[in-house]
Amino acid sequence: MLIQKNSTDLYNSYLQQMHRIADLRYANAVLQWDQETYLPKKATDFRGQQSATLSELAHEFFTASTFGSLLEELSGRTDLDANQQRNIALGKYDFDKSVKLPAAFVRKMSEQVTKSYHAWVAARNQNSFAIFLPELEQLTGLKKQEADLLGYESHPYNALLNDYEKGSNVAWLDGVFGKLLQPLKALLDEVLVKQAKVTDPLNQFFDKDQQWAFCNDLLQRMGFDFGLGRQDLSEHPFTTSFSPQDVRITTRINEQNLGFMTWSTLHELGHAWYEQGLPTTQYGLPLGEACSLSIHESQSRLWENCIGRSHSFCEWLLPIIAEHFPKQMEGVTAEQLYHSVNEVKPSLIRTEADELTYHFHVMIRYEIEKKIMAGDLQVKEIPILWNELYSKYLGINVPDDKQGCLQDIHWSHGSFGYFPTYSLGSLYAVQLFYQLQKEKISKDESIAQGTFTPVINWLGKNVHTKGRQQESDALCSEICGEGLNSEIFIRYARSKFLP
Amino acid sequence: MLIQKNSTDLYNSYLQQMHRIADLRYANAVLQWDQETYLPKKATDFRGQQSATLSELAHEFFTASTFGSLLEELSGRTDLDANQQRNIALGKYDFDKSVKLPAAFVRKMSEQVTKSYHAWVAARNQNSFAIFLPELEQLTGLKKQEADLLGYESHPYNALLNDYEKGSNVAWLDGVFGKLLQPLKALLDEVLVKQAKVTDPLNQFFDKDQQWAFCNDLLQRMGFDFGLGRQDLSEHPFTTSFSPQDVRITTRINEQNLGFMTWSTLHELGHAWYEQGLPTTQYGLPLGEACSLSIHESQSRLWENCIGRSHSFCEWLLPIIAEHFPKQMEGVTAEQLYHSVNEVKPSLIRTEADELTYHFHVMIRYEIEKKIMAGDLQVKEIPILWNELYSKYLGINVPDDKQGCLQDIHWSHGSFGYFPTYSLGSLYAVQLFYQLQKEKISKDESIAQGTFTPVINWLGKNVHTKGRQQESDALCSEICGEGLNSEIFIRYARSKFLP
Repeated sequence: MLIQKNSTDLYNSYLQQMHRIADLRYANAVLQWDQETYLPKKATDFRGQQSATLSELAHEFFTASTFGSLLEELSGRTDLDANQQRNIALGKYDFDKSVKLPAAFVRKMSEQVTKSYHAWVAARNQNSFAIFLPELEQLTGLKKQEADLLGYESHPYNALLNDYEKGSNVAWLDGVFGKLLQPLKALLDEVLVKQAKVTDPLNQFFDKDQQWAFCNDLLQRMGFDFGLGRQDLSEHPFTTSFSPQDVRITTRINEQNLGFMTWSTLHELGHAWYEQGLPTTQYGLPLGEACSLSIHESQSRLWENCIGRSHSFCEWLLPIIAEHFPKQMEGVTAEQLYHSVNEVKPSLIRTEADELTYHFHVMIRYEIEKKIMAGDLQVKEIPILWNELYSKYLGINVPDDKQGCLQDIHWSHGSFGYFPTYSLGSLYAVQLFYQLQKEKISKDESIAQGTFTPVINWLGKNVHTKGRQQESDALCSEICGEGLNSEIFIRYARSKFLP
Repeated sequence: MLIQKNSTDLYNSYLQQMHRIADLRYANAVLQWDQETYLPKKATDFRGQQSATLSELAHEFFTASTFGSLLEELSGRTDLDANQQRNIALGKYDFDKSVKLPAAFVRKMSEQVTKSYHAWVAARNQNSFAIFLPELEQLTGLKKQEADLLGYESHPYNALLNDYEKGSNVAWLDGVFGKLLQPLKALLDEVLVKQAKVTDPLNQFFDKDQQWAFCNDLLQRMGFDFGLGRQDLSEHPFTTSFSPQDVRITTRINEQNLGFMTWSTLHELGHAWYEQGLPTTQYGLPLGEACSLSIHESQSRLWENCIGRSHSFCEWLLPIIAEHFPKQMEGVTAEQLYHSVNEVKPSLIRTEADELTYHFHVMIRYEIEKKIMAGDLQVKEIPILWNELYSKYLGINVPDDKQGCLQDIHWSHGSFGYFPTYSLGSLYAVQLFYQLQKEKISKDESIAQGTFTPVINWLGKNVHTKGRQQESDALCSEICGEGLNSEIFIRYARSKFLP
């Protein structure tokens, strides 16, 4: 029966279905945003149930056999335009992956995520891994089931890795990390010896409300459109999006240090610009989605580090900080600010790590997840292994779990396999940054004057508006002339940290 | 096939369906709360679409013929317990009403409401009815279609009135208002002559942030559980609920007068306690819903007026205000506060009206809606008639539409037929208050000490936990020994305002 319909009609029913599914998913994202920003404490149970229902329905609609037949039929239609064909091809790929997870399993996972998230918040507040443990055990059990349902070759972790970064797997990532870490460790050791001692001017008391005002001012001056988004506070900073016209970031304030909030905001801003730059005409369709998590992370790391921790950015930023905090910034120079935000120092918290040690934080999580998924590590053993690895790779002692394995939200969300995309993103960021400089789009003198529009527009044209047209490596190749190459990162890091 | 199943199994599938529908409806309520509190300005289109999808799906599930058959089958089951039977009976009533509205119509309405709401916000900001007009025309057109779809006797407005207050209609309401307004007008005239001149201590500058802090402190002291709800700012104060464990109120701050925010908060608090008091075990079911809008309003008006504007409450409140605003409250007495919050004065804004003139505000809206629905008035003529009626009933000139027909959010939401429940609620409030005093639950000396728990508990037991067990009048009868009786209101008002 389908075969008699013309491609336009078929594509329109595809659109209608996809929009309904997207509306459900984005509505669920609103519920989750609310959960992490404004939800009353005792409201978590019903919210978990509501969120699970939306997840389940979206999954049910997306995996309906009639929808599968529609995609199947459309896959053969050569009279669709290139974008339409790409949407259908990606849709088919996503469908084939999704049907592997039964609706009941998706609901169970969603409910468990809600429970785990709240257990994590409590555990973190009370600095007790034991509070998180039972819920995390349940969750990792479900993740193993998920890997089995999705199917994999060689290693169960591969199923999850592929879910976050298409094509990635243990063998490939072992290679990437292997190639990166040895020169990075050598560089790190050298930097730690040679680097001058700095006194961090951001490491003093900054009032919460004043930080909040400064942060919003910074976003405004950088060009964040508050008509298309907003910023709020949450336990763990994140970016979420309900359409390219409603992109929300969150931040966390530490009154003892202005830097944490500031660079975390720059990080989320990079993510937010990506989401705002996705084509609204492709709302709810694959081409309306970001290329990949690693490319998403390349945007945040580019703004946080490559630009945000550059000499010229510090020159621009210092007078703005001083406007808000004249007392604290008295006598501080841009040079001093630059050195303090680029101090290399093995530390406990991933999101506060410098550009060099950052990859070790990621690798530690990667190693732990790999072992958990392989069944070589029990959940209750995580804190011990975590602390061992921090000692081994970064030479530091983890004093408690709050500053250790409870620091990240990811596991509470069931995001196993997500962390590696952070390292990949940092590598892509540097490659994009090199290209921006090569094409003379990002110029030190413009950054020093707070002129960010050329960079934003270039990223918009080359990355954001493209959605899922290509995969990560192909996109990087198209823009930079070659795919992932960690040597470029090492070159960048060497010239920055050992000038 | 159904007939072979046992009642427990059937009831469980009913529960499952109802929970899924409730989850969708409450998720939509979250989207709407967000829309009126935190939504970025340019995000309205996609949000409208998302909200419409949730509405449509909830409606689709609720009106599915299989669900109708399930209700039909369960209606005959006498082996269900009394609560279950009541849920099924109400479910059947709601179903029969809902199936009259096709899904496409519900979606159209939802999308139009989103457009109309944003047009209303813009119109209000720019004080221009013209901005609201085209969207309101569309919306009233849809409301007329809705009345036709629902069906009615005598008057199309009856279909909508019945939707907000089961059993109410033009003939009955004309009678209620007719009986109420004549003695009220006489009383009003007398009070206006006899009442002493007062200087309102709340009518001066109160800083926004300080008002906000005061307001949250007030809620805390009155016993509002912030673990089960929250307060935010919005264009128009409202209460919404996503479960009895997540009940949210909003308020609006006027820096020139502390009273508006304070008593509006007491009003919403009354609504919020009702929602928090509904039985969680009946989540998503008729018995988990409030009795009616008028009984809902009785709760808000009881706290706002009967208790909130009493002598003893003013005694308790004054020192709290003074703690937050020592300068403004210097030398103010509780007596003075009492008189100023009970000043009777024909005014422009319904939500700021005193207890006597309030009913005229409601009646004016009722008259206009009646004419619109009958086709006796064009939407563009609303401002003229509005202003005429304010002049006729309250003897005041409406200077502009912002203070006139643009003041209420209701029409932008398509809520035609809602306003009369405000007057009904105020009448029920007084009847409940009399009963509270008769049973010595609400005692002046306790209120003066800020002891509200006995009243909250009594309302919880007699009203809140009952959900939709009875209809408004039956509930009132059960508690007070008689149904709606506007003479009690007149007696209360006479003794309060002409002591």
